[in-house]
Amino acid sequence: MSRNFLQEFLEAVAERGRGLIGLERPSSQERPADLLALSNALLTGRGEVSGVALAQQWLDAYAAADDEHRRRHLAALADGFGPDQSRLDAAIEAYLQDKSPRTMAELNAAAEPRRQELFRRLNRPAGGTAALVRLREDVLADLPGNAKLEALDADLAHLFSSWFNRGFLMLKRIDWTTPANILAKIIQYEAVHTIHSWEDLRSRLEPSDRRCFAFFHPQMADEPLVFVEVALTQDIPATIAPLLALERKPIRAEDATTAVFYSISNCQTGLRRVSFGNLLIKQVVEELRRDLPKLKTFVTLSPVPGFMGWLKRELAKKDAHIPGVADLSVLEGLFQPAEQGGTGPTEAVREAQLAAAAHYFLVAKTPSGAPIDPVARFHLGNGARLERINWRGDVSANGLRQAGGLMVNYLYDLDAIEANHEAFANQGVIAASPAVRKLLKTAETQPARRKPAVPALPPPARSADAAQRPRSTS
Amino acid sequence: MSRNFLQEFLEAVAERGRGLIGLERPSSQERPADLLALSNALLTGRGEVSGVALAQQWLDAYAAADDEHRRRHLAALADGFGPDQSRLDAAIEAYLQDKSPRTMAELNAAAEPRRQELFRRLNRPAGGTAALVRLREDVLADLPGNAKLEALDADLAHLFSSWFNRGFLMLKRIDWTTPANILAKIIQYEAVHTIHSWEDLRSRLEPSDRRCFAFFHPQMADEPLVFVEVALTQDIPATIAPLLALERKPIRAEDATTAVFYSISNCQTGLRRVSFGNLLIKQVVEELRRDLPKLKTFVTLSPVPGFMGWLKRELAKKDAHIPGVADLSVLEGLFQPAEQGGTGPTEAVREAQLAAAAHYFLVAKTPSGAPIDPVARFHLGNGARLERINWRGDVSANGLRQAGGLMVNYLYDLDAIEANHEAFANQGVIAASPAVRKLLKTAETQPARRKPAVPALPPPARSADAAQRPRSTS
Amino acid sequence: MSRNFLQEFLEAVAERGRGLIGLERPSSQERPADLLALSNALLTGRGEVSGVALAQQWLDAYAAADDEHRRRHLAALADGFGPDQSRLDAAIEAYLQDKSPRTMAELNAAAEPRRQELFRRLNRPAGGTAALVRLREDVLADLPGNAKLEALDADLAHLFSSWFNRGFLMLKRIDWTTPANILAKIIQYEAVHTIHSWEDLRSRLEPSDRRCFAFFHPQMADEPLVFVEVALTQDIPATIAPLLALERKPIRAEDATTAVFYSISNCQTGLRRVSFGNLLIKQVVEELRRDLPKLKTFVTLSPVPGFMGWLKRELAKKDAHIPGVADLSVLEGLFQPAEQGGTGPTEAVREAQLAAAAHYFLVAKTPSGAPIDPVARFHLGNGARLERINWRGDVSANGLRQAGGLMVNYLYDLDAIEANHEAFANQGVIAASPAVRKLLKTAETQPARRKPAVPALPPPARSADAAQRPRSTS
Amino acid sequence: MSRNFLQEFLEAVAERGRGLIGLERPSSQERPADLLALSNALLTGRGEVSGVALAQQWLDAYAAADDEHRRRHLAALADGFGPDQSRLDAAIEAYLQDKSPRTMAELNAAAEPRRQELFRRLNRPAGGTAALVRLREDVLADLPGNAKLEALDADLAHLFSSWFNRGFLMLKRIDWTTPANILAKIIQYEAVHTIHSWEDLRSRLEPSDRRCFAFFHPQMADEPLVFVEVALTQDIPATIAPLLALERKPIRAEDATTAVFYSISNCQTGLRRVSFGNLLIKQVVEELRRDLPKLKTFVTLSPVPGFMGWLKRELAKKDAHIPGVADLSVLEGLFQPAEQGGTGPTEAVREAQLAAAAHYFLVAKTPSGAPIDPVARFHLGNGARLERINWRGDVSANGLRQAGGLMVNYLYDLDAIEANHEAFANQGVIAASPAVRKLLKTAETQPARRKPAVPALPPPARSADAAQRPRSTS
Repeated sequence: MSRNFLQEFLEAVAERGRGLIGLERPSSQERPADLLALSNALLTGRGEVSGVALAQQWLDAYAAADDEHRRRHLAALADGFGPDQSRLDAAIEAYLQDKSPRTMAELNAAAEPRRQELFRRLNRPAGGTAALVRLREDVLADLPGNAKLEALDADLAHLFSSWFNRGFLMLKRIDWTTPANILAKIIQYEAVHTIHSWEDLRSRLEPSDRRCFAFFHPQMADEPLVFVEVALTQDIPATIAPLLALERKPIRAEDATTAVFYSISNCQTGLRRVSFGNLLIKQVVEELRRDLPKLKTFVTLSPVPGFMGWLKRELAKKDAHIPGVADLSVLEGLFQPAEQGGTGPTEAVREAQLAAAAHYFLVAKTPSGAPIDPVARFHLGNGARLERINWRGDVSANGLRQAGGLMVNYLYDLDAIEANHEAFANQGVIAASPAVRKLLKTAETQPARRKPAVPALPPPARSADAAQRPRSTS
Repeated sequence: MSRNFLQEFLEAVAERGRGLIGLERPSSQERPADLLALSNALLTGRGEVSGVALAQQWLDAYAAADDEHRRRHLAALADGFGPDQSRLDAAIEAYLQDKSPRTMAELNAAAEPRRQELFRRLNRPAGGTAALVRLREDVLADLPGNAKLEALDADLAHLFSSWFNRGFLMLKRIDWTTPANILAKIIQYEAVHTIHSWEDLRSRLEPSDRRCFAFFHPQMADEPLVFVEVALTQDIPATIAPLLALERKPIRAEDATTAVFYSISNCQTGLRRVSFGNLLIKQVVEELRRDLPKLKTFVTLSPVPGFMGWLKRELAKKDAHIPGVADLSVLEGLFQPAEQGGTGPTEAVREAQLAAAAHYFLVAKTPSGAPIDPVARFHLGNGARLERINWRGDVSANGLRQAGGLMVNYLYDLDAIEANHEAFANQGVIAASPAVRKLLKTAETQPARRKPAVPALPPPARSADAAQRPRSTS
Repeated sequence: MSRNFLQEFLEAVAERGRGLIGLERPSSQERPADLLALSNALLTGRGEVSGVALAQQWLDAYAAADDEHRRRHLAALADGFGPDQSRLDAAIEAYLQDKSPRTMAELNAAAEPRRQELFRRLNRPAGGTAALVRLREDVLADLPGNAKLEALDADLAHLFSSWFNRGFLMLKRIDWTTPANILAKIIQYEAVHTIHSWEDLRSRLEPSDRRCFAFFHPQMADEPLVFVEVALTQDIPATIAPLLALERKPIRAEDATTAVFYSISNCQTGLRRVSFGNLLIKQVVEELRRDLPKLKTFVTLSPVPGFMGWLKRELAKKDAHIPGVADLSVLEGLFQPAEQGGTGPTEAVREAQLAAAAHYFLVAKTPSGAPIDPVARFHLGNGARLERINWRGDVSANGLRQAGGLMVNYLYDLDAIEANHEAFANQGVIAASPAVRKLLKTAETQPARRKPAVPALPPPARSADAAQRPRSTS
Repeated sequence: MSRNFLQEFLEAVAERGRGLIGLERPSSQERPADLLALSNALLTGRGEVSGVALAQQWLDAYAAADDEHRRRHLAALADGFGPDQSRLDAAIEAYLQDKSPRTMAELNAAAEPRRQELFRRLNRPAGGTAALVRLREDVLADLPGNAKLEALDADLAHLFSSWFNRGFLMLKRIDWTTPANILAKIIQYEAVHTIHSWEDLRSRLEPSDRRCFAFFHPQMADEPLVFVEVALTQDIPATIAPLLALERKPIRAEDATTAVFYSISNCQTGLRRVSFGNLLIKQVVEELRRDLPKLKTFVTLSPVPGFMGWLKRELAKKDAHIPGVADLSVLEGLFQPAEQGGTGPTEAVREAQLAAAAHYFLVAKTPSGAPIDPVARFHLGNGARLERINWRGDVSANGLRQAGGLMVNYLYDLDAIEANHEAFANQGVIAASPAVRKLLKTAETQPARRKPAVPALPPPARSADAAQRPRSTS
């Protein structure tokens, strides 16, 4: 069956390829037309008969419009293409009189904003899907403080969750034989550990003990949606630098026992909240297990992007107290480099920082009761368990600034994933290894008081945003 | 860009192909599980974390179930997976108090039946889309007289219109190098002029003056959705037999001036009302024009499936009268073969039948005001015009029984399509050539009375159905 | 590396595909030109600079020529394009004076007929290879009794052995998703057990317990070179009919222990003596073992095409004697159907026929000392062993006529193949199972005399030819 | 037919790809075996039956051998695998007695060194072709002064000319969607204008007015054989720097009238004397004309690598005289930078240098009567004409050192190519534009004497080699 699929698709794709050349983009010279008129036309019968051409015109016009024009148009879409109100009101009345499947069905149909049908029709031309993803980027950029756009955004998110259904995604290995235009995008989209050059990229793709996988969608074949970088190792790594070193002696893939997910990056801002990372990790685990049956351990080496922000806020509190940290002032050195008088990496710092981290991961919560760290929320939500906290795992400037150098490993134990997920989702239970729990135990039983006061620090910019929508999640 | 797409896809598809072998069908041995329990599980958080595996289990169980079991399950889906009623009621109340975008958005979300999310999750495993299309076949089979299934059917149709959005379809040429499994399906699905053997098929695909195109969907790569057979000719043909003759001398494609669409077949019952034929014809016209710039005329040679049924009903009326047909009894011979005393193909029959046909196409209407012929509704709705009525165009047994041997040509004049469509959709204007109009003119000005009475005949079975959802539309 | 290869090739092939359309066949209208003049032009500098176009012209002209014209041209090639004689004579003289590597190299170069360079240049246009293979068909057809063509034929065979080097061949699985044009050729080329219809073909390709593989060459991508049909079973079959039955219950491939090669057909007459069958079997064995590790036994179910011819000749001898067959007259009934008074399949016939068969395979020899049966020579030469002789294994008309109903199994025991081959090639030792040997033992120890005399029968036509160049070898 | 080819190949390639993974490289751990014994085994019957495995072993052993071991082995191949001498002597005798086609054929067969069959068998495993190309690199490296290797080298060249027959090559466009591993090789193999970075590469591939094409062979799918870089322009460029500038404003491909071949690089040393460049240029011209019908002019912008070497030699001669250069001392400044007292780019230099260049191209000859410039020999041999000499066309360090800054344009006028080639090949006539001829005319009519003497300069290293086998030819 697989060969079948392959074969068949090839033809289709070849045909499609041809389609793109001469057929579907009749004239990109088109001057920006009246988008509103086009939108209305698309929703009439004319839209049905000449839909592809009209939709192409719409998309070309939108692409050619300037920011101001686009913004006005998005507002018009938000205002004017909601549900047909009289039909909706009638449907409500009918429903309230008789709550039958039929009235419910009509209510459902009537409540759908006309925008959704508009977007479905805009999706018809080749390139339509990608254009709508870019349109949503514009919506998201304008969204903060613009409640009117919320419904518009919800409509796009709703459609995207259908169109980018996991059944339509394709997992592809990215390696050194991948087309350069795709690789250039991998360099561009990498959000966790910057790729500094093509040689750096090559060192992450070509060696026998490196893997990279991405999800693609048939309608956006040149655009990775999310990708993960994997190192094959013989134990669980505690620090990132050796993994990224350009000069390494790779091991044979067959000799590896451990797959380390050390970077996961979402690529498309316009697909925010259409989550793929969870599925990607699971499918990559399956893929790796099949190819390399000796792999036993699937684990991340992840950043802790929220730690220093949280710590600042904690230290800024009056009567600041972190259980297990006897002397909070030890931690203050983390905020300034050693050469500027900050504490060096002493054993005291290690103990205090690990205790604080255990508290940060296992005890501290957002107002809504979730873990503070966005990466933790992602992996715990997937059913992973917090396996190890690595002191000075990332001593790059960024690693020190965000996490005081901390990195953590999340373990994907296939037998426990579902139970972990259930316990986390339903009761907020955080799966953690005994070693991590022990850090906490010690911590919780020791009195901890900060000695000197520290000035209140403002929370880091965008942290809330990062917490909800991490672009990178390893 | 096209090469790009090709290249990229190939990898994706190869990966996907591999995926199918070992990964995604964990155990087809699974005994039919409790579908209801699985449905509920899929809609919880567990569905999120183990969704693909659960969905696969669901689909396997459904496939393994017997008719009775399936029917019970469909009923349960229809009854139990509508909208969350308390959420819906609250949303209505909020909306009625404040008709804002936000309350509308919530109302829209609340009105969506839980089934839709269920189906989206069932669509995740490889093969999910095809399985749901087959599930809808079951729904449609049970639908007549079963109002409870209507909402269920509407939900599936709604999702399919997103998933089978034209942007996701791929046009593929079908020819003698197409894989045999696909060709076997072309033989099976042909609904207008039966394909009698592989040699018959070959004679429709391989000669230089024949073309065939189909739409495919990435998730159902082995299944054509709709296909059209085309003959390249030097004039507009009036009869079907020479086109289908096994022994023909083909012309060179470059010498053709006319493309004749002589058969269009929908393949997937489960995709009823998710219309592709319109799009197919237009894209094929584009494709042909690009490859063969000398083509000037795009025309069908189409059956008239409703004619004899209508004629029977007319003749059965008291005071039956068809303008332009002086002696209705001439037409009665059409209902019995010449050898059984029926009228032979005399000039009198020709005149009377053409006049009746002009009336049938241009004047007669269904109760809702549409043309009676389902094929006419399809092509006129696409913006084609009724170009010519061909007397004795199809004298096969089927052609005589359905249409008294009539065939017609619908002309796709690219410059007129949109205007034709508008006039038809908005004012019910039927585009017809002067020659066809003239048949009517003559008809309308002549008094016509049937001489002897004929017994009332029942309308043909399924005609209404065929009228709304023609499986074949050429 | 494999993905790499795939990816790369796709582009190449796409390009090539495009190349074929507009580029390389400048004008097929060309009137048949003077082939001799073209041949000479191709061998000059002009051939170097405009070689592809000239070669295309040559090939077009040859294809357009009638038989007489072709024959004259082949004769001219045979006569006039040998080595440059004065250069050759000089090279011989230099060599005879000083047998150094350098004079040998020059002698080698000088001895090469100019035809070879001509053919290499004719091979440049797309389609050149296939055209030359067809040209050799013409040569072979005229070869018998035409000594002048021998050198021409040898030149082609020499070039083909380079061009069709195993490194350039590609093994492809043939199944029900293979393009129909290829499958039509499988039907056409099947040489052992005729494929009677597309349904018959499907029954050999689609069931889970059937496989078919072919070798292809990049330059003749639409033309299988040789193919083998395989049945997956749970024991070694003795008769062909159940394997070919349209109504069978297939087993799961995973449950099979035995792969039965029941038909091998060479497809290209023009590639005679460029042997692929040996390589095909071995590569298919590897392929099957990798996909289905439970397969333990690789065996053929093969015809015995030379048996009845040999038997006729034996019986026609004066004092005919076959060790182990007491009464030769028992065997005479094999030559006429039971209904015409021939012997039915009695136990006496069975014993006599098996003894004769053992003698035929293990003792009887051609004048040059090889086994008489061409299929036996093929498989024994590959290192297989004669495993079992099946009485009445093929009671079709053809099976009875050629082999009196006998079929045999040759076993490919991977551990023994090389030793078997060596012993056969160097000492003429025939590998056979104890069971087969036992038939012989019994035979050899029994006196055997024919009772009545039979008239001398002529040897069957083409048997010598078949012996050397079996088109079918299973 | 092209789709057909595509489709078919895909399967083949997919199969082949799979083949590479598990099948054909049984154990790369193999310790270096006795190559001589393996060679002999390969040439026996055992080689026939287990050829692929044996050949793989041979290739693995050779790859694993150190330089000394390889060198000894190549010597053994050169010494011991020539023709079978007794067979050869007998064939000569038979031929001398009767010069018939049959004795010629036998002589031809007998004169073939056994090495050739050995290499054909080594070519059987996947990767064999590439391995033999690398082996020839070793031969070529040792060849100078090692006459024994000549015959070995000739055998490889002979086989390669069959295997790399133009019919087997595939033209592929190289662009920004090409796999990165191929692009890395383009960077590595570029021999004319060094590619300094991936951005530099991208600027040569991605803009709308840039093209790059390469030839590939099916058995070396990751290895370009030769490639050409093309700029699309609106006139014939005189200088290279603007073409290579990273910051350029590209024109639309459709607006270009001129295709400039500004770099051609051979990639495989092991394929020396198996010429592709000629074919590549012609096929690329066809490809470009088809895609961009407005292109009218096909021209190179080429280096003049032999100019300064020749000039040095001329100036070093006693009584040096270059017609048209009145004062040779003007030219001496070309050998030292202006800042070191060399002449700046004055009008006097311009005139003298152009006159000298005209003489260099049109009059000066190698001892064997060919033009001195290797690039000129290549393009003139292809039938191009010397169109223009560009003073200071390449003022890079390399351009000044090799050519005193000169570049030239060779024009490929499709109507004149064949005649140009004939005149050049047969009578040594050099096709040149009137403008170039005029430079000479002037030159030839003016007396030219060098004023001061210059010291004799040695000819530049490798120039003879470059003359015969230019790696880069634009």
